[in-house]
Amino acid sequence: MPALNLEVCLTPALLHLHDIRESIVVVIDIFRATSSICYGIENGATAIIPVESIAACETYRESNYLLAAERNGEVVEGFDFGNSPFAYTSEKVNGKTIVLTTTNGTHAIHQSRAAHQVVIGSFLNLNVLSNWLKIQERNICLLCSGWNDKTNLEDTLFAGAVVSNLRDADYKLDDAGILAADLYTLAKDDLREYLKKSSHSERLKKLRIEEDIAFCLRQNITQSIPVLRGIELVKLD
Amino acid sequence: MPALNLEVCLTPALLHLHDIRESIVVVIDIFRATSSICYGIENGATAIIPVESIAACETYRESNYLLAAERNGEVVEGFDFGNSPFAYTSEKVNGKTIVLTTTNGTHAIHQSRAAHQVVIGSFLNLNVLSNWLKIQERNICLLCSGWNDKTNLEDTLFAGAVVSNLRDADYKLDDAGILAADLYTLAKDDLREYLKKSSHSERLKKLRIEEDIAFCLRQNITQSIPVLRGIELVKLD
Repeated sequence: MPALNLEVCLTPALLHLHDIRESIVVVIDIFRATSSICYGIENGATAIIPVESIAACETYRESNYLLAAERNGEVVEGFDFGNSPFAYTSEKVNGKTIVLTTTNGTHAIHQSRAAHQVVIGSFLNLNVLSNWLKIQERNICLLCSGWNDKTNLEDTLFAGAVVSNLRDADYKLDDAGILAADLYTLAKDDLREYLKKSSHSERLKKLRIEEDIAFCLRQNITQSIPVLRGIELVKLD
Repeated sequence: MPALNLEVCLTPALLHLHDIRESIVVVIDIFRATSSICYGIENGATAIIPVESIAACETYRESNYLLAAERNGEVVEGFDFGNSPFAYTSEKVNGKTIVLTTTNGTHAIHQSRAAHQVVIGSFLNLNVLSNWLKIQERNICLLCSGWNDKTNLEDTLFAGAVVSNLRDADYKLDDAGILAADLYTLAKDDLREYLKKSSHSERLKKLRIEEDIAFCLRQNITQSIPVLRGIELVKLD
């Protein structure tokens, strides 16, 4: 059998170059959508429904749903919460279904619908996700959500962390995967320090989400893998 | 005055995300189009006309032009030569105009036409190009041609080399630029060894272009900067 492919797609704007129909796509939006999704599913959310627009989110405005809407890093007015992981504690989300729209992450999830399977990755579930991927015997595409379709460092670093974890398995890597893994090797001893040089660091600082960022860089504090079933993200059995 | 932007566009498929109208675009296709263009202009070629298709190249079939056509790394049948730098020696190109079409590089040049200015970069003219860029006081977009619109390591490394050279100037870097510069720092002591792990290395090996590759990684052996004037690349005065 030829080696399986392990590819990194550096932004959703390049996803058309990857044939994902037989692949598992891992959607990555470290600050903060996919970190919060991992945390919410871990904390007992029944499901998280990613929607592309604020208007689509509004259509779920019934008592049984929690509505979460973020644009450009801030909670949209009139919504319960945005994409801070601290809004996804068990007190708030256990037994609830959340409808979520974000600037980049939910867009990337929608772009991936043609895949064999779509799962959600973040540093929170890094090892459990990597170990699960290893035993699937499938092509894998690690999809970085980026920022407005441009590459960002944090999503690339996480893709590199997964590639590093899968290094001992027999995958054929693309150049973006090699680049991501090398970048992760360079930065892994202090991700937070490394990310201070990001072009987004000023923007993130203005949002006063320092604590969110520190939380989103914590590794292996959750055991769940969110998976897309129909229109919902649920916990993989 | 706000700092100027120094951006890296990792593939032509992302160029629409960059506003290049007021920028200098540096087109990069290390293996081998832009290396050969730098070498040919250095060696006295009057002009190099980049065209997108083999058919367009054919229309120049007159005694005064040299026709160069490459697809997937090989010279197209019926053409004088392809994009090996060794075809661009002074004996062959001095005083001649060359019409050139390649898989990735000429496409990237055409995509950049809306820019304030389009110049050609390669390791051959790395320092002379970097020093010239520094004194232009313009936004800069380093455009990697990639491979069929996907990121490749060699073009990203060269972009990183330019970013490293411009580090002491006051540019605002994007995340792709940070990533490219860090990758270059990691690889610069032995670029050829580093590139052996590229996903393209097997493909390149099959093409038997080992000598071309070694040549294209030589730094600062030319002094010319090819610039696009109308439809022609000529030597910048």
